[in-house]
Amino acid sequence: MSVTTKANARWEGNLKDGKGVMRLPSGTYEGPYTVKSRFESGASRENGTNPEELIGAALAGCYSMYLASILTKAGHTPDHVDTEVSVQMDTTDSGPVISKSVLRVRVKAQGLDDQTLQAKAQEAGRDCPVSKALASVEKTIEASLAG
Amino acid sequence: MSVTTKANARWEGNLKDGKGVMRLPSGTYEGPYTVKSRFESGASRENGTNPEELIGAALAGCYSMYLASILTKAGHTPDHVDTEVSVQMDTTDSGPVISKSVLRVRVKAQGLDDQTLQAKAQEAGRDCPVSKALASVEKTIEASLAG
Repeated sequence: MSVTTKANARWEGNLKDGKGVMRLPSGTYEGPYTVKSRFESGASRENGTNPEELIGAALAGCYSMYLASILTKAGHTPDHVDTEVSVQMDTTDSGPVISKSVLRVRVKAQGLDDQTLQAKAQEAGRDCPVSKALASVEKTIEASLAG
Repeated sequence: MSVTTKANARWEGNLKDGKGVMRLPSGTYEGPYTVKSRFESGASRENGTNPEELIGAALAGCYSMYLASILTKAGHTPDHVDTEVSVQMDTTDSGPVISKSVLRVRVKAQGLDDQTLQAKAQEAGRDCPVSKALASVEKTIEASLAG
């Protein structure tokens, strides 16, 4: 079985002064982006998004769903799995590189102990489809039990 | 120089009946998702999105921006670069795998001929940061000049 999804983007103009928009097919999202919203830290990003934010959201979404699934199979259906993903892009001599990601996950689930959580958190980081697709990006996972 | 972006997601409940939401940090987007919106084709996806759509949008966004940059350097500042990305996820014995993507790109740029476009389109597919991050996903690029 296979499922195909579609999305699109348009860029207008040169790199420095141009602008773009990334769109989800459902029409529920249009994310504007520019060189500033992609390569400058801090406040300037309030004026737009960038592909790395979408990558982070996709990884957080896939990881949370996958971890919920394997925790359920282990007898700990989660109330919630919260994952924040940081994505780091470095400028190198050969251009920008998405080098690292950090996944900070907090889980609330009946009867779940820290040791089981740590094992399952690593398993999800290895096996969730988006994590596998981002093969070249280093991943660090920090998991903890929510109070 | 490095830039770090953040995004997050929450999943509630088990896989089958649970639900999730993926969020961009700017608060401009919250994308709901479920097993149906991820693994069923067609109409059911109207009720939500999935991580693969965000991956597709990120790849389309990065690719369009990168191609605009290298076309500009080659003397052909684009009016626009439009890229639609299809992402295919296959269900395998070892779980779901994001296997393939197809990038359909249409470019309008003064003085650009098809031969140059084809070369630059392949170069962008090889070198744009999101494309490199998605190292394990097969990519096919279909580029054409917009009228």
